[in-house]
Amino acid sequence: MNNFSLIKTSGPARAGELVTAHGVIPTPVFMPVGSQATVKTLTPDEIKALGARLILSNTYHLYLRPGVEVIKKLGGLHRFMGWDGAILTDSGGYQVFSLSALSKVTDEGVTFRSHIDGSPHFITPEMVVDLQEELGSDVAMVLDEPSASDAPLSQVRQAMERTHRWAERSLVSHKRANQQLFAIVQGGFSPELRRQSAEFLASLDFPGYALGGLSLGEPKELTWETARQMLQYLPKDKPRYLMGVGSPEDVVEAVGLGIDMMDCVLPTRVARNGALFTRKGRINIDNAVFRAVESPIESGCDCYTCAHFSPAYVSHLFRAQELLAYRLTTIHNLRFMVRLMDDIRKAILDGSFDSFRKDFLSGYQTTDESVRLEQKQKWIKARKPEID
Amino acid sequence: MNNFSLIKTSGPARAGELVTAHGVIPTPVFMPVGSQATVKTLTPDEIKALGARLILSNTYHLYLRPGVEVIKKLGGLHRFMGWDGAILTDSGGYQVFSLSALSKVTDEGVTFRSHIDGSPHFITPEMVVDLQEELGSDVAMVLDEPSASDAPLSQVRQAMERTHRWAERSLVSHKRANQQLFAIVQGGFSPELRRQSAEFLASLDFPGYALGGLSLGEPKELTWETARQMLQYLPKDKPRYLMGVGSPEDVVEAVGLGIDMMDCVLPTRVARNGALFTRKGRINIDNAVFRAVESPIESGCDCYTCAHFSPAYVSHLFRAQELLAYRLTTIHNLRFMVRLMDDIRKAILDGSFDSFRKDFLSGYQTTDESVRLEQKQKWIKARKPEID
Repeated sequence: MNNFSLIKTSGPARAGELVTAHGVIPTPVFMPVGSQATVKTLTPDEIKALGARLILSNTYHLYLRPGVEVIKKLGGLHRFMGWDGAILTDSGGYQVFSLSALSKVTDEGVTFRSHIDGSPHFITPEMVVDLQEELGSDVAMVLDEPSASDAPLSQVRQAMERTHRWAERSLVSHKRANQQLFAIVQGGFSPELRRQSAEFLASLDFPGYALGGLSLGEPKELTWETARQMLQYLPKDKPRYLMGVGSPEDVVEAVGLGIDMMDCVLPTRVARNGALFTRKGRINIDNAVFRAVESPIESGCDCYTCAHFSPAYVSHLFRAQELLAYRLTTIHNLRFMVRLMDDIRKAILDGSFDSFRKDFLSGYQTTDESVRLEQKQKWIKARKPEID
Repeated sequence: MNNFSLIKTSGPARAGELVTAHGVIPTPVFMPVGSQATVKTLTPDEIKALGARLILSNTYHLYLRPGVEVIKKLGGLHRFMGWDGAILTDSGGYQVFSLSALSKVTDEGVTFRSHIDGSPHFITPEMVVDLQEELGSDVAMVLDEPSASDAPLSQVRQAMERTHRWAERSLVSHKRANQQLFAIVQGGFSPELRRQSAEFLASLDFPGYALGGLSLGEPKELTWETARQMLQYLPKDKPRYLMGVGSPEDVVEAVGLGIDMMDCVLPTRVARNGALFTRKGRINIDNAVFRAVESPIESGCDCYTCAHFSPAYVSHLFRAQELLAYRLTTIHNLRFMVRLMDDIRKAILDGSFDSFRKDFLSGYQTTDESVRLEQKQKWIKARKPEID
């Protein structure tokens, strides 16, 4: 059975369906992030009510805590967290290299220390496949070796080639019938390496392909140009997943290149900092201007938060550091993303995506790039255990 | 119209009904605390779903943030926080004296500095009545002057007499028809002063009476003995509210004395520290023994948390410091309190409260008093802005 159907294109933009063991997911899709088996602050009921049907969790985090054996004993990840929608598990490749200390890579696998308690661990690509089979996610990702954005070309090539060997081993190792295993294209910012990586992995005939190593702080133009190059070498009949994107504006851009799937902590993380999405850009709910505002932040928003509470109340909760604040803003931003993806998909099905894209971007005040970079750098530096 | 009906007694224990503008409340009742216009972590839908119908909020907190004028502009406290059940607002007397800096008391009123920003404020008993009328709570409390548990008798007497003069002025000042104003009995731990205070305030014919200045760290025997003395001087046909109680065991004891209403931050605060109530005592969900436990913490618990999630999952969320953890434990403890009050009321209606009390207390492992005192002292010392 095909796991993916391409239904309609509008320029490079694609509308399709991803078939999983826990439902058919209309694409393009934005996946809320629940690294530690919870989309931060929300119950599964709330995630479902806001319209998300596919969420992302993280093998690295779950392997370290509570341990995959615990989740397996409790009936798998869906049952453990009470979520009957679909789940994609990231392999944790990025986390092993970015969060943990003293990682050492050989062809066999990676040695690293836990960011939680410093305990030593060794994982192989086969083990990462096994772990995801035990978690029982609907989509699993291969273990890859990302390279730093400023790494010399020889290192990027070496990491890419290892990523390829690991992808082959992962595919051989993978057994679970109701789970799809996606490959991850690497190759840094070298067009030649990206082509090699995409072509090689395409030849292995994975059921889906992710674009790794992007949106890590490089200029946006470079992100889009690199993604565009890669996509031309990937099979048209397979889902394409851009990891780590994005903001509302980036999601629109990515779909415009032909991306089908995305995930990012941004909507939920900025929500917990009080930034709410509107079609005109972000607003900061803890700002004093909202102190006595009764009318909704954006007319027409049907999220639980906007339907039940005034901006004045949410603003009060935020300034009082009440935990309910973080729930309410998270719900708003995720519902915003779901509605945005719905509108994007309708535009593709109408054949009018390009004008949708132009209208959206011309009306949307993007957050200053330097502010975003500074926030990202701070976060990377702090290496917070609270990763999503 | 009578605001309170006494339906049945079982020894000193009383089953009744408190009639408010937002519903009839079966008593005895435990009120969840939502000092800052939010029962920490929960939406009004969740509070309603777990069966609470009367919650407590706090005039001092709301006066300082967001400001009563903001709440009034937004349509009153019920509408501001989206809660259509009943609300009792505490006057903030206790908070003015315990949380704020530099409080100075005269007969006219109290001068204090905000614990949030140090700004100076002056309030009178009349202003506190006005503020609660503007908030639109169902039950309002008079401004009182508590005294420290180690204050000399002359000071306790002086504070009590001022509390009495303030109660008279509050009653004269109160105008709002659909709001009940309760008096607060003071008098420290002197049986003679407590008698004087109860008798004097009873003579003013308030629609309800609170027992103030108790459960502040004194030995439990002293709490119960002082409450017992006071209750004999209070009218039997009026609701009696013991402020700041309690834990499951204390609630059972208080009802046994003839108390109708109680509030306490304990069930919600200890929930956020991972302590879950069971009929056998508290358990700590972050304990490693729960790491892989699937069967519910207590069979028969019908709370949302126990119905949807394993102890293993809640334990994982706690250890990972995920915000969902604090919601789930809060729901469990408040549902526990609601069910406990339901069972208590049934026992009173059956005339079997005394044996219920004995059974409950003999099966319940109380938390060590020294641990509780230490926690309370720490908290008082820290004067956390997060008061509930």
